[in-house]
Amino acid sequence: MAHPTNRLYRLRSRPRGKVRDSDLEWLEEPVADLAEGQALIRTLYLSLDPTSRVWMSSTRGYMPPVELNAVMRGVGVGQVVESRRDDLPAGSFVQGFTGWQEYCLADASDLEASFTVLPDPLPAPLHTFLGVLGHTGITAYLGVEIGDPEPGETFVVSAAAGAVGSIAGQLAKQRGAQVVGIAGGAEKCRYVVDELGFDACVDRHADDWRDQLDKATPLGIDVDFENAGGKIMDHILGRLNVGARIPLCGMVADYNNDDEEAGHAGLPNLNQLLMQRVQLTGFIVSDHVDRFGEIIGKIAVALEEGTLRYEETVVEGLENARDTLNTIFSGGSRGKLVIKVGDPES
Amino acid sequence: MAHPTNRLYRLRSRPRGKVRDSDLEWLEEPVADLAEGQALIRTLYLSLDPTSRVWMSSTRGYMPPVELNAVMRGVGVGQVVESRRDDLPAGSFVQGFTGWQEYCLADASDLEASFTVLPDPLPAPLHTFLGVLGHTGITAYLGVEIGDPEPGETFVVSAAAGAVGSIAGQLAKQRGAQVVGIAGGAEKCRYVVDELGFDACVDRHADDWRDQLDKATPLGIDVDFENAGGKIMDHILGRLNVGARIPLCGMVADYNNDDEEAGHAGLPNLNQLLMQRVQLTGFIVSDHVDRFGEIIGKIAVALEEGTLRYEETVVEGLENARDTLNTIFSGGSRGKLVIKVGDPES
Repeated sequence: MAHPTNRLYRLRSRPRGKVRDSDLEWLEEPVADLAEGQALIRTLYLSLDPTSRVWMSSTRGYMPPVELNAVMRGVGVGQVVESRRDDLPAGSFVQGFTGWQEYCLADASDLEASFTVLPDPLPAPLHTFLGVLGHTGITAYLGVEIGDPEPGETFVVSAAAGAVGSIAGQLAKQRGAQVVGIAGGAEKCRYVVDELGFDACVDRHADDWRDQLDKATPLGIDVDFENAGGKIMDHILGRLNVGARIPLCGMVADYNNDDEEAGHAGLPNLNQLLMQRVQLTGFIVSDHVDRFGEIIGKIAVALEEGTLRYEETVVEGLENARDTLNTIFSGGSRGKLVIKVGDPES
Repeated sequence: MAHPTNRLYRLRSRPRGKVRDSDLEWLEEPVADLAEGQALIRTLYLSLDPTSRVWMSSTRGYMPPVELNAVMRGVGVGQVVESRRDDLPAGSFVQGFTGWQEYCLADASDLEASFTVLPDPLPAPLHTFLGVLGHTGITAYLGVEIGDPEPGETFVVSAAAGAVGSIAGQLAKQRGAQVVGIAGGAEKCRYVVDELGFDACVDRHADDWRDQLDKATPLGIDVDFENAGGKIMDHILGRLNVGARIPLCGMVADYNNDDEEAGHAGLPNLNQLLMQRVQLTGFIVSDHVDRFGEIIGKIAVALEEGTLRYEETVVEGLENARDTLNTIFSGGSRGKLVIKVGDPES
């Protein structure tokens, strides 16, 4: 069988600040012949997340940094187009670490460790398995569980219009909490309040964002679903109530910043973790694979009942992935951000 | 009855850096006549702790800042010398918020909220009720319980020669952990290893303290009993293992520093709380009054059995309290630091 040409990104240097063309090279390469036990997967959708940026840096993360000159790491959904395995016939849909490439030649260990076969027939559109029914929805669920907001408590979530924050706030609202989002720009704030049903949303682009946050949390803050880090986290720390909980999900303010001096260059309120007897819990979705089935089931029910809203931003063309990732850090996207790489074959 | 003259400290201004004479004025004042329900307590020992410095600042702490011109807040043990209460006869020994003064005229609400009558006869020397059998011993016990070190895990404690750290490390060692202290100076490090039985101690005054800490924790760090904050905490963050626990007991590096810009002016490794899925728990001993009896009982047994060592530094004379407090931050004391204010009357 004649193979198509693969188009892909290789990491050539670790970016400082925004990812430049020279950091992540876009190129064409031939696809090799398949060995026994391998499968060739065509990527259909690729997930773009803040963590993608972490993997490019030398930060000691929860996975090792992507090696220089390697194909960029990424989670996608794809379709098997050629297979030398009985358990994975051509035409199957899978989710896993496809990488930032059109064709992923996966060997047995890759397939067993980091791919999941999607149900046939598909119960929901393919790309939702990268979002609300995938890692981001499960992350939101876990973080709300850790924060455990009680009725009447004040729950704050940063990146509230994003893939995780938008789901987290809705789940907290369903528990009876007073839910305050933080998002970038008036349009996103309107979306968070009017369409997602949060009680308030603070525009972090406004000069008076600190005042807005103070006014929206007159009784202090009991749960901080922390996605941001940096100065927003610091201001929240200064408003925590005794016994507050912080599910620590992300520190996006840091990810784009490899300058050693600048990393959290000042959280003067960090001592409030002590003064208010705060419980802070860092968590990563991939530690909880044993609960994915249970949680996806609950989210699927909420979607069917119409009690949970979600949004996805689908950008066409793998060649746009690099520039689109940069928009996450300038706050350009709403909901889950995915790249559409291709259409499935029927 | 003719009252003696009281000698005391009043807070006149909030210190920046070290506490100066003009911040905390030493003066003489008459003692008022007692009203019904009041008792006059003569301070015998006064506890000096890092938190004393916090109370002088405007920091939003777990107790409100001491008001300007008020008597400086402090915990002491004392003896009732005059009483207009049936439940507190003259001669009784009490522990509580005596303040930095020789005579404390306590009214009913003070006595009920913040004083404890000590057992008669006393089972241990008076000043131990400010140390190993008081707040510092209980704090160590609670923090080790929160950190929950398992046999073979690596447990690190800063301020290891201090009142809390010295007890915490010994309790962790009894659980079978590999215990590494951090202390200031070769003499304190020798004490921590040779006399307290820690496995290693890092001299934070040495130029190569980071290398020392790396070598002493070859398997990474599982529990950080955090007393220090600042650059020591940051280096520890960079060596945490997945699933590490941080009982957050103090951030002394901050307390002497009221410069807003300088407060935690850089914890570049803070993101490791996320990456290593860390559980950080701020705790304050006074939240756990319901467990004091149980914990003091356990510590008293360990002292009797000789399985727990402690040291106290007793400085004579209340007039030396201000200068002695400053030595805590320059690392001058070992074990629990108390001021001896006077001798009991028999």
